Amino acid sequence: MYADIVGPDVGDVVNEQSVLILPVGAVEQHGPHLPMSVDDVIATETATAVVSTFGDEHDLWQLPTLSISKSNEHAWCPGTLWLSPETMMSVLRDIGRSIATTRAERLVLLNGHGGNTTLLVTALRELRLEFGLKTFLVHPSLPPAYGGTSTEVELGMGIHGGLNETSVFMHLRPDLVDLSRAERKVPEKIASNAHVKFGGSVSFGWLSNDFDDVGYIGDPTGATAERGAELFRHAVTTIGEQMNEIRAFNFGR
Amino acid sequence: MYADIVGPDVGDVVNEQSVLILPVGAVEQHGPHLPMSVDDVIATETATAVVSTFGDEHDLWQLPTLSISKSNEHAWCPGTLWLSPETMMSVLRDIGRSIATTRAERLVLLNGHGGNTTLLVTALRELRLEFGLKTFLVHPSLPPAYGGTSTEVELGMGIHGGLNETSVFMHLRPDLVDLSRAERKVPEKIASNAHVKFGGSVSFGWLSNDFDDVGYIGDPTGATAERGAELFRHAVTTIGEQMNEIRAFNFGR
Amino acid sequence: MYADIVGPDVGDVVNEQSVLILPVGAVEQHGPHLPMSVDDVIATETATAVVSTFGDEHDLWQLPTLSISKSNEHAWCPGTLWLSPETMMSVLRDIGRSIATTRAERLVLLNGHGGNTTLLVTALRELRLEFGLKTFLVHPSLPPAYGGTSTEVELGMGIHGGLNETSVFMHLRPDLVDLSRAERKVPEKIASNAHVKFGGSVSFGWLSNDFDDVGYIGDPTGATAERGAELFRHAVTTIGEQMNEIRAFNFGR
Amino acid sequence: MYADIVGPDVGDVVNEQSVLILPVGAVEQHGPHLPMSVDDVIATETATAVVSTFGDEHDLWQLPTLSISKSNEHAWCPGTLWLSPETMMSVLRDIGRSIATTRAERLVLLNGHGGNTTLLVTALRELRLEFGLKTFLVHPSLPPAYGGTSTEVELGMGIHGGLNETSVFMHLRPDLVDLSRAERKVPEKIASNAHVKFGGSVSFGWLSNDFDDVGYIGDPTGATAERGAELFRHAVTTIGEQMNEIRAFNFGR
Amino acid sequence: MYADIVGPDVGDVVNEQSVLILPVGAVEQHGPHLPMSVDDVIATETATAVVSTFGDEHDLWQLPTLSISKSNEHAWCPGTLWLSPETMMSVLRDIGRSIATTRAERLVLLNGHGGNTTLLVTALRELRLEFGLKTFLVHPSLPPAYGGTSTEVELGMGIHGGLNETSVFMHLRPDLVDLSRAERKVPEKIASNAHVKFGGSVSFGWLSNDFDDVGYIGDPTGATAERGAELFRHAVTTIGEQMNEIRAFNFGR
Amino acid sequence: MYADIVGPDVGDVVNEQSVLILPVGAVEQHGPHLPMSVDDVIATETATAVVSTFGDEHDLWQLPTLSISKSNEHAWCPGTLWLSPETMMSVLRDIGRSIATTRAERLVLLNGHGGNTTLLVTALRELRLEFGLKTFLVHPSLPPAYGGTSTEVELGMGIHGGLNETSVFMHLRPDLVDLSRAERKVPEKIASNAHVKFGGSVSFGWLSNDFDDVGYIGDPTGATAERGAELFRHAVTTIGEQMNEIRAFNFGR
Repeated sequence: MYADIVGPDVGDVVNEQSVLILPVGAVEQHGPHLPMSVDDVIATETATAVVSTFGDEHDLWQLPTLSISKSNEHAWCPGTLWLSPETMMSVLRDIGRSIATTRAERLVLLNGHGGNTTLLVTALRELRLEFGLKTFLVHPSLPPAYGGTSTEVELGMGIHGGLNETSVFMHLRPDLVDLSRAERKVPEKIASNAHVKFGGSVSFGWLSNDFDDVGYIGDPTGATAERGAELFRHAVTTIGEQMNEIRAFNFGR
Repeated sequence: MYADIVGPDVGDVVNEQSVLILPVGAVEQHGPHLPMSVDDVIATETATAVVSTFGDEHDLWQLPTLSISKSNEHAWCPGTLWLSPETMMSVLRDIGRSIATTRAERLVLLNGHGGNTTLLVTALRELRLEFGLKTFLVHPSLPPAYGGTSTEVELGMGIHGGLNETSVFMHLRPDLVDLSRAERKVPEKIASNAHVKFGGSVSFGWLSNDFDDVGYIGDPTGATAERGAELFRHAVTTIGEQMNEIRAFNFGR
Repeated sequence: MYADIVGPDVGDVVNEQSVLILPVGAVEQHGPHLPMSVDDVIATETATAVVSTFGDEHDLWQLPTLSISKSNEHAWCPGTLWLSPETMMSVLRDIGRSIATTRAERLVLLNGHGGNTTLLVTALRELRLEFGLKTFLVHPSLPPAYGGTSTEVELGMGIHGGLNETSVFMHLRPDLVDLSRAERKVPEKIASNAHVKFGGSVSFGWLSNDFDDVGYIGDPTGATAERGAELFRHAVTTIGEQMNEIRAFNFGR
Repeated sequence: MYADIVGPDVGDVVNEQSVLILPVGAVEQHGPHLPMSVDDVIATETATAVVSTFGDEHDLWQLPTLSISKSNEHAWCPGTLWLSPETMMSVLRDIGRSIATTRAERLVLLNGHGGNTTLLVTALRELRLEFGLKTFLVHPSLPPAYGGTSTEVELGMGIHGGLNETSVFMHLRPDLVDLSRAERKVPEKIASNAHVKFGGSVSFGWLSNDFDDVGYIGDPTGATAERGAELFRHAVTTIGEQMNEIRAFNFGR
Repeated sequence: MYADIVGPDVGDVVNEQSVLILPVGAVEQHGPHLPMSVDDVIATETATAVVSTFGDEHDLWQLPTLSISKSNEHAWCPGTLWLSPETMMSVLRDIGRSIATTRAERLVLLNGHGGNTTLLVTALRELRLEFGLKTFLVHPSLPPAYGGTSTEVELGMGIHGGLNETSVFMHLRPDLVDLSRAERKVPEKIASNAHVKFGGSVSFGWLSNDFDDVGYIGDPTGATAERGAELFRHAVTTIGEQMNEIRAFNFGR
Repeated sequence: MYADIVGPDVGDVVNEQSVLILPVGAVEQHGPHLPMSVDDVIATETATAVVSTFGDEHDLWQLPTLSISKSNEHAWCPGTLWLSPETMMSVLRDIGRSIATTRAERLVLLNGHGGNTTLLVTALRELRLEFGLKTFLVHPSLPPAYGGTSTEVELGMGIHGGLNETSVFMHLRPDLVDLSRAERKVPEKIASNAHVKFGGSVSFGWLSNDFDDVGYIGDPTGATAERGAELFRHAVTTIGEQMNEIRAFNFGR
């Protein structure tokens, strides 16, 4: 863990080859079958597994998870904790500014909450421009709206508390999942759209209660811990491969 | 044009079915073969063609182009005009706040500059949450990093001043293109990456002089006005289809 | 047009003698006889005519018009698009910061909307102090509150959609004017004031619906395209003279 | 003095007819013949004289002087205390917000520093729009750039530490003036300009060391306390007349 | 007075040994027996007495009082003038930035309003970090919540308009105090708390109308000008001792 | 843990009697004998022990630790992660705004880093004023500068990485402490001051390298896990008592 380094030793321990990883979680409603901690747990557990598995090989250092982030699509649901986009960007800038004082050149954001994705990509450039860092964004599971895939049974729209996310969380925290409170909540209506849909060519602004007031979008009814374990292992393996490329990444010049 | 409506008539002319379109351009270096106006011209001309073709059918209203936007990946090149992400978001918020006083419910951002994309997607949610607008983002040409495609000859990395963009601009402003100053500038080095590349699963922060100091990324040498005309027609047609869905779009509730 | 310069050529094309001109328009209600585009059209057309007439002589470069600006005195009227003073200042700062990377030393704001005037004058100093630019503000028609004159028939208070502005716009866009909807709307009540009036020694805060809910202030009933043509020619000539001084302007040191 | 009102009595003492006066000073270099306190002293003494003379008649209430303001044209001279335009606007907004909780409807800014003028005029509208206040700006001596006059001997450019200001200050604080250190410092060079000059039709950005490094602009050599006494009396009388109009001022509706 | 220094002489008059003092007042309700000016008067008079007594010895320079500050615990009472914490910090930063251009190294905030204390301590570090100043905070009377003491008769909770503050103000402005409107208003209820009380180990957020709507907290009924005179003399003497240490203060390096 | 509540159940689970606890840590240099995680670990472990011991009795809910906070007194040391005061306040505001949507009325900040204390106390009032929350601040160990005590052997100045903090951390993470790298670093020089010292009547701005470049202030050489265990138990017990008062706390009205 990065924070367990001795302050005056940072200059020796962290060097130009080191990769710093900032897990980004969320505390936000995920429907009645999941706790608010889902994204926070997944981001942290994935980062921990990645660092545990590949840390020595790739000189990875895990930063403290940013547990509360930009969850304002769930602002309607009491309990959700959310930062405004301005606050979130300021936090990222402050962290980037801090890291730039070390010899480390590479910062990876490991994001567990799809609602952060575009803001984080925007931040990648800001931190590069302002502090000269090489910056990267990885996901345990890439959101459909940003190039990822979702299951066919969910018509590609299992984007929040759906089959895959619920399965992964069942693997990580089985006692915190209650599938008896879940049902199929796929916005079938927009599935027939060619463009305006999740993962379509037209992005659109939405809140998680725009489609239905249950607060989740997808069909978690078939979720299993086994499926989750498989997805989790795959995510860790994939991020390991990504870290391999990130560590070697240099611009062409 | 929206701005040509008589002020006190806005309440009658613009209604709940109207779609307002904000073209978003840029004034930024595009290498030695293209002027800085490329994105501004493409965004504006596309919007004009879309409104001219489909405006009556879909009740479309073209707002003044936001000609200067977030072009800070080109800040290194004197001449580029750029807004900080904070300024850009403030401008979008102010426009959203203004539009929300009319009866219009739908705002479409028509974006000609890939460097804006993630900030604009972030703004879609802000404008929906703060002002209740239905918000959409369309592109004349979706950037590879956000789900679009680029040519194979450019290894999918013709992202700035490359084959397609140069062709479209040759169609629109043939006198402003000088292909004799162009050569192939594809960052071959990262093409072999599985993850960390344009359109790959790992986003990364980059400036347009990170790869090469020519400032463009792609291979414009084969660009033709004919190819550009075809791409432009296709963009207008596609956005017309998108407008059809946008106009009909309602959340499921 | 500045934006049509090739990026890498900016260093050669724009030099210490060049004058950059930023037209500042507005999209705001102008009463029932004029469209919202009035200030945007006048600022842009004036700049175009000035650059067309004097551009070669004085090395003038026209920047993209800032079409949406600080129109919050018309915020009460749905349809008006307005930036907050903070956003507007940020946009101007970002543009100044961008221009300061070129060899150009002189930036002229050509303002079509009186509601911007004081903020723009404030910005002149900020851009000089922060970026070392020589900065200037010119008007097609100087507002009475800032030293300009208005017609006697309007008691010097034809400040928004009145005789002169309506005439100029009739010259530029005759098809967009409907004088049949205009009447005399001069706030006679304050005309007898010695101090608290437009152009008086006491400035006061006002919104365009403070006096009357029609939204214009002045008497456009006698407006003609001929009068407008004369005023427009005079404005272009005057700004040409101003550019002559601006180009030669150097502080005494 | 407003601050000497008992808190719970504010609701009774200050009413819809009351006029609140905020003196705005500055602490900034004024050349070698004057102290930095000039504008602060003039604003405060003028307000005190006005309230003392006309306070009962017009129900005037003097707020604490804002002694430090936007003096950034003098930032180059160590000792000058200055607020950024953003800070200054925030202070004015906070004061406006506070006053709007009382029954008072009229706020007058009495400004002793020309460098504040345009920002204050901008603020007049903000406070009217945001808090519904009727807002006014008065000057002991209106700056030439904003419609005032300066002496002919100074070619209309005695704008900072010149004949009139020095005279007024000699009247108020004779012991703090040392005319032996003053000489004529009029920027003759720009006097021949028709447009680009103080009080001309073209505003320009300037710092007080742009013309000469002495820091004052004008010719204070002929200043006398007698002249100052006359100017001061005239200012008080004029502001008294202005207060008469301000107190009666209502928009036409 | 600092402001009475001649601008160009600041470099000679103010040197590395000088101590600049910024009195921080407030204009806020103090219950029915005291005017809103209490903190402003006490801060200013204390500073004046300190500089008058010890100024030559310790090279002290009094800055203009910041009369309006962060009084938002009294925002509920019309008449209170208050800055937001953001505005207040910006003002302090701007003043620190200005002072850092002189040779002075020491800035003392002399605070008359307990509601400012924590923000001012926070600012001490910001001004040290950003501008390299040595920064200090002194109080005429240290608030109980920050280590000071209050009278036993008030159970240590005479924190706003209570016995001591009322006495000091009676000494300074006897004509502005009306004890006939005062009674005992001590929040006895929380006195039995071991931790959650004024000066206890648990800080808590409170507004001055949380306990009682009279707006003062303490028991001013026994206040006398004699007691106030003694307290005032003691404060001036103590601050004189503090200035002695401040002037000599250097970090150990 | 608060985050493990099911979103739609928050309205039932968290009620008017619930107390939410936000641990505030830090990642900052603590000298060569301690890791950067000290404050983060202490804040989190203390909160966990408090909630584990008293959670059922007092209906306590632990929020995710804010691991990175305002550590700018250690900005000089590469590795320290720090938020600006503006960012930190924004994060607290956003959390307060979020919590105010639940039925919970009481928010306790449990602060492990003395550098946050004054900003957190300032925030207590902001969150009370803006969101109506009852807000409290508790410390595992109250800093000397804010009313706490430090050991006599350290002359009351064991404020960062000193005897007590090192002991507590040895109890919690014995493997992360290396006393062989510690020595006595007490700023003896200021101990003789009556006022300007830690816990003295004059607050002063300092950075952790102002006194010595080792980065810690105190004498950790005698630290033991036993002493730490005792201090930790005492802290938990004390905070338990504080929670008892907090839960019952109501203003007098």
